[in-house]
Amino acid sequence: MIGLSKEVFSYIDSHAAQFVEDLKRLCRQPSVSTRNEGMRECASLVRDMMIESGVQCKEMPVPGGYPVFFGEVETHKSDKTLGFYNHYDVQPPEPLELWGSPPFSAEERDGKIYARGVSDNKGNLVARLKALEAIRASVGDLPVNLKFLVEGEEEIGSPHLFDFVKKNKAMLAADAYIWESGSKDPADRPEIRLGVKGILYVELKAKGAKSDLHSGKWAKLVVNPAWRLVWALNTLKNEKEEVLIDGFYDDVKKPTREEMTILRQTPFEGKKIKQELGIREFLGGKKGLEALKTNIFEPSCNICGFNSGYGGPGSKTVLPNKASVKMDIRLVADQDPDDIFTKLKKHLVKKGFGDIELEQVGFGYPPARTSPREQIVQIAVKTAREVYGKEPVLSWSTGSSPIYTVTRNLKVPVVGAGIDYIYCANHAPNENLRVKEDFIQGIKHIAAIIMMFGREQK
Amino acid sequence: MIGLSKEVFSYIDSHAAQFVEDLKRLCRQPSVSTRNEGMRECASLVRDMMIESGVQCKEMPVPGGYPVFFGEVETHKSDKTLGFYNHYDVQPPEPLELWGSPPFSAEERDGKIYARGVSDNKGNLVARLKALEAIRASVGDLPVNLKFLVEGEEEIGSPHLFDFVKKNKAMLAADAYIWESGSKDPADRPEIRLGVKGILYVELKAKGAKSDLHSGKWAKLVVNPAWRLVWALNTLKNEKEEVLIDGFYDDVKKPTREEMTILRQTPFEGKKIKQELGIREFLGGKKGLEALKTNIFEPSCNICGFNSGYGGPGSKTVLPNKASVKMDIRLVADQDPDDIFTKLKKHLVKKGFGDIELEQVGFGYPPARTSPREQIVQIAVKTAREVYGKEPVLSWSTGSSPIYTVTRNLKVPVVGAGIDYIYCANHAPNENLRVKEDFIQGIKHIAAIIMMFGREQK
Repeated sequence: MIGLSKEVFSYIDSHAAQFVEDLKRLCRQPSVSTRNEGMRECASLVRDMMIESGVQCKEMPVPGGYPVFFGEVETHKSDKTLGFYNHYDVQPPEPLELWGSPPFSAEERDGKIYARGVSDNKGNLVARLKALEAIRASVGDLPVNLKFLVEGEEEIGSPHLFDFVKKNKAMLAADAYIWESGSKDPADRPEIRLGVKGILYVELKAKGAKSDLHSGKWAKLVVNPAWRLVWALNTLKNEKEEVLIDGFYDDVKKPTREEMTILRQTPFEGKKIKQELGIREFLGGKKGLEALKTNIFEPSCNICGFNSGYGGPGSKTVLPNKASVKMDIRLVADQDPDDIFTKLKKHLVKKGFGDIELEQVGFGYPPARTSPREQIVQIAVKTAREVYGKEPVLSWSTGSSPIYTVTRNLKVPVVGAGIDYIYCANHAPNENLRVKEDFIQGIKHIAAIIMMFGREQK
Repeated sequence: MIGLSKEVFSYIDSHAAQFVEDLKRLCRQPSVSTRNEGMRECASLVRDMMIESGVQCKEMPVPGGYPVFFGEVETHKSDKTLGFYNHYDVQPPEPLELWGSPPFSAEERDGKIYARGVSDNKGNLVARLKALEAIRASVGDLPVNLKFLVEGEEEIGSPHLFDFVKKNKAMLAADAYIWESGSKDPADRPEIRLGVKGILYVELKAKGAKSDLHSGKWAKLVVNPAWRLVWALNTLKNEKEEVLIDGFYDDVKKPTREEMTILRQTPFEGKKIKQELGIREFLGGKKGLEALKTNIFEPSCNICGFNSGYGGPGSKTVLPNKASVKMDIRLVADQDPDDIFTKLKKHLVKKGFGDIELEQVGFGYPPARTSPREQIVQIAVKTAREVYGKEPVLSWSTGSSPIYTVTRNLKVPVVGAGIDYIYCANHAPNENLRVKEDFIQGIKHIAAIIMMFGREQK
């Protein structure tokens, strides 16, 4: 396989300096979607860079949002198509005082580039464009058709992406998609990602009297909204961590034999993790494989915040008049956030808590899971093994991302592969990327995937 | 009875202006115990005023606290003794901007004196001294021995009073005590108080990992302290408002037939109250007598605050690492805060919540209840009826005060009678007292009680 890509890899090595400059160029353009900072300028730059890399690029306006760029590179050598998903927006860089260099200066120090977005997700976008450039410049025509889907709203929840993909199914059709990124584990083994959890974020609100009251005078007669939420929550999950909403587990897909085989090979240092987190044991006393399986393949129901009444020092004898609970419910394939929201709503009414206001906060993300049997997975693993010289780790993220927008609409396998590493600090100060180990090797990995995906039969 | 006090009342009327001046003099001396503001100066003034009124006064230092003044007036006419409890400290006057005149200026407007402490509790103290002066000046010798117990720490929880009374039982012995105050109901009927609830204030704290964590990564494996508290609280009280702690109700004294008779005569405008509080119904749909009985004769278990994790706008996907609940448990006779604390502690351990830290906040107050059959109650009612010309209302406070320090140590009946009215705004801005209706009439009422208590046989 490496033989096949030898010339491509040489080209990448000899053009590394130029590729790094292009990455810095994109990182120096702020693009903070949540406050519309530099978004127009960054969109123009993304379009320019796609075109410079030889991509047929179409800017597609999104009413009420930032434009999506659709890119295509066609070949007559293959009827297969590989798609890439990336985003050009970034998280806000604050707190600025914790950065070693300005977040949009893309300073290089000790073999690393420091910049907001360098790993999430500009480095990945540039790596893919450079892989394409390298293949064309060194071996000529592409072995497979490529499609690029580049949005500008990932960091604000991709509010328009699902509808966009739905409307443009034919245009976006492909045999597989590589999602925005992959990472490396603590031992620097490349991670290939097979899925993400879904998420439903809700707020429960209970109300009491017109205003806070003197507890001595009224606690026996007036409803206490904090108690209402305590009793309601208690009906949602028991101490064994079992969610008690009717039908909550109906659509949960148990891990397959293949998935369990992968899980058994997944490094998991329970003792070290517990030590670092400062806990004695995992929930339910789970250990090793059992803990890992629970974490990846089971849905969660978490209280993010419970706020009501007095929380200051000492005592205040008050009967609060409102209480709020924020929860995130992480879903696994094939649970659906809308369905779970409906079930939760019904549950509350059935249990006598119709007085509690239930509201969805933000967008729900359905989960996504790709079978390890898929060709694109096999190829991502094989090529990673050869490029990085280490045994890759197949993994599933317990976080959420909008992969469902593609899996649900296009019915294609999606795999996460990319350039990040464990200390890349995305969403945090001093986001960074190692130039050689991550960026240049990452370009080679993507190039190798393209080469191999083109060669293999459907 | 009025006949007996006619000369006394005339004296009070003709010396009203001087009595008001003395009240203003005491109100103009700040005495904010919580921040030791003016306490020494106020103590000296209290001693001076007690002596001026003819009381044998003894300043008794309290190690680590403010002095107690013990006062005595002896007579050979009777072997009965009536005690008075008052305090000379006041609540902080803040927020100052809400006052119509400076809180320590004791300004008189529209027949009212505005001052921090004018009702709670300086007006009551002065009224008692003036009643004593009036009796002596008009009819000569007292018909009964009097004792005064005046502390300076009521507004900070009377931390030293129980031990003080315990150590000085013989000195403080009496046949009955009149507590710091009484009030008037919305129809301006004088209220005579037969007791208070007790209070136990606790904080429950649960802990999780070393720090807040990403909920997506860890919610399935790491303990969530907010969930721990939800489950623990759920074992403490059910939706029917029944407290589930073993033995919680063991010492609850049901209201007697006499108490129920009084309750039936107690005005209670449920509809109006619900409207004012903005609620549809009282807990459990209770109404009228049932609601009133519950409120007065049943203990409560209230969440004052539940605080954990994120409470800001929108969503934050966090697994909080700590959670805290503050609760006040209001006790009725003969429950004891120390006993209930022990039972609560045992309950948590028994239910599997030994990981939750339980801490008492501030001082627990036991409840106190005086039988309406007591002679001092009958006298307070009869005299109030004649002085105010309205049918008095017997009542029990659902708040807490340190009456237990006297009832437990001296085993005497205690009744609340005094000068406050419903809009006296104690603990609030613009605390005030009506000169004629409250202060002058209040002096007469206390004088009448003294006269009658002396006349009646033990």
